[in-house]
Amino acid sequence: MSEFDLIRQHFTRTTRYTELGIGDDAALIRVGANMELAISADMLVAGTHFFADADPYQLGWKSLAVNLSDMAAMGAQPRWATLAIALPAANPAWLTEFSRGFFACADRFVVDLIGGDTTRGPLTISVQIMGEVPNGLAIKRSGAQLGDQIWLSGPLGYAALALAHLQAKIKLDADTFAQCASALHAPQPRVALGLALRGIATSAIDISDGLLADLGHVLSASNLGAKLHLNQLPQASHWPMASSLKPAEQLKLLLAGGDDYELCFSAPAAAHGRISQLGSTLGLPLLCVGEMVAERGLAVHGLAGEMLDIKEAGFDHFK
Amino acid sequence: MSEFDLIRQHFTRTTRYTELGIGDDAALIRVGANMELAISADMLVAGTHFFADADPYQLGWKSLAVNLSDMAAMGAQPRWATLAIALPAANPAWLTEFSRGFFACADRFVVDLIGGDTTRGPLTISVQIMGEVPNGLAIKRSGAQLGDQIWLSGPLGYAALALAHLQAKIKLDADTFAQCASALHAPQPRVALGLALRGIATSAIDISDGLLADLGHVLSASNLGAKLHLNQLPQASHWPMASSLKPAEQLKLLLAGGDDYELCFSAPAAAHGRISQLGSTLGLPLLCVGEMVAERGLAVHGLAGEMLDIKEAGFDHFK
Repeated sequence: MSEFDLIRQHFTRTTRYTELGIGDDAALIRVGANMELAISADMLVAGTHFFADADPYQLGWKSLAVNLSDMAAMGAQPRWATLAIALPAANPAWLTEFSRGFFACADRFVVDLIGGDTTRGPLTISVQIMGEVPNGLAIKRSGAQLGDQIWLSGPLGYAALALAHLQAKIKLDADTFAQCASALHAPQPRVALGLALRGIATSAIDISDGLLADLGHVLSASNLGAKLHLNQLPQASHWPMASSLKPAEQLKLLLAGGDDYELCFSAPAAAHGRISQLGSTLGLPLLCVGEMVAERGLAVHGLAGEMLDIKEAGFDHFK
Repeated sequence: MSEFDLIRQHFTRTTRYTELGIGDDAALIRVGANMELAISADMLVAGTHFFADADPYQLGWKSLAVNLSDMAAMGAQPRWATLAIALPAANPAWLTEFSRGFFACADRFVVDLIGGDTTRGPLTISVQIMGEVPNGLAIKRSGAQLGDQIWLSGPLGYAALALAHLQAKIKLDADTFAQCASALHAPQPRVALGLALRGIATSAIDISDGLLADLGHVLSASNLGAKLHLNQLPQASHWPMASSLKPAEQLKLLLAGGDDYELCFSAPAAAHGRISQLGSTLGLPLLCVGEMVAERGLAVHGLAGEMLDIKEAGFDHFK
């Protein structure tokens, strides 16, 4: 199968809001009036981000999902994506499953695949996502204010637990593993939440490297510090398989395991009720876990309120 | 050096027309009123598109240049780019040179680098380019008309000659190699020509795989055939090192060597004079080499006007 047959067969679908899709030197889109275009890119490499024998359907889903998560963090409506992929060989069965997973995610979040590239090489997937957000309404990392409350869109650490199980570092029972594996393989980007937070959240970031590292970026950008209260997290007291992990290890997975794709956002205390209501509306367990403070740095208070010593700063490719 | 230091040190520059650049979950841009956004992506893999020990400055330049060539082929004004790169290790010297080359090209063509990703893995470079073109004015592959003349923006085959020399398949003298190597390592995307062809050219494509293959895409999209007259090419009679290559080999490099990044475009015969004038204005050796015909297929006529038998269809990754 030639490169062009490959593109045509696996990746060319009808588009919803694209002027010119796959098939020319470039795609053409029209961005809505008074809209900014939010643009983000992520590259996933076999051996670094996923196992070389990862299930292609799940990989297809996740390749797009992790990018949609960046759109959610901006309060942008994802609309268009491009996919550049290097493959060791043109394996039709693998491609069928990969594209099925990719488009399952694209269809779920109503995204057009408008272009990309296919080439031969070690398995590497590069996705760029583009979305719309009204002028001035994008939620930035730099907007947090002193006194704002800090929220999470859901529980953390499940993906890291699943990975630890797959790496034989811990052993989860079947039910727990199934729940955690779902978080690892099929993350659900919080797009609807991001849209609903326009005009409410003062800052937002999606948790990919880990809460500590990612919140750290927000703090740097906003020139603030933060206090986190772990006793606010239901997980802190009854996390899956907590008994087989030492507390410090549990904490590390929770705060620095990464791959969560939940949103961490800040908002004025006055918005607390509104945000809680939003959680009900969207069916998300939004949780207020701390506040923005003047003193730089990240102060994490444990279950009994005690200050914890946080050494692990999350995943960094080149440290 | 951490991933974030790497991005900050090597890839973060002041932008010219970007609302929010590198540093948040996504970049933000505003597309001009009544403009379509043209979007294209290319992935370059060590071992497939370039030698693993390729000069990083040249690689940086070329990574962006090949994408700008797609903008030229649409008649789009390139404005924004993202860069996702997988590196085996964070080598500061290599990155300094790569980013220098990349930004040399970005500055030459006035493009903002607005985002991307850096990760660990086999050397793989994925660039996405975005440009503006007024609504309806983009030059598509599907617009060629029966009777249109076919043009090239410059001579072909030089990059392929350089590559053949580097692979020890032929030997070029020093001066000839220098000229050919420049085409291979530092292609000049025909952006100004693309802009000037808006409203004149009925179709366009940039030659990356090779004239035969790329013109073939235009013919498929436009439902036409073409006749090419090689006696129109100055090269056909006095190509570099022609004496050391058999005519068939010479033809293969010329028509199917690829990596040329010249434009192949069609235009009404009535525009011939206007286009010739454009060549003078832009300092490009625009050459009319054939015409669009009804009979499907590509008929290539050699130096004496004889029909040639063209078997080689250009570079396809998975054939």
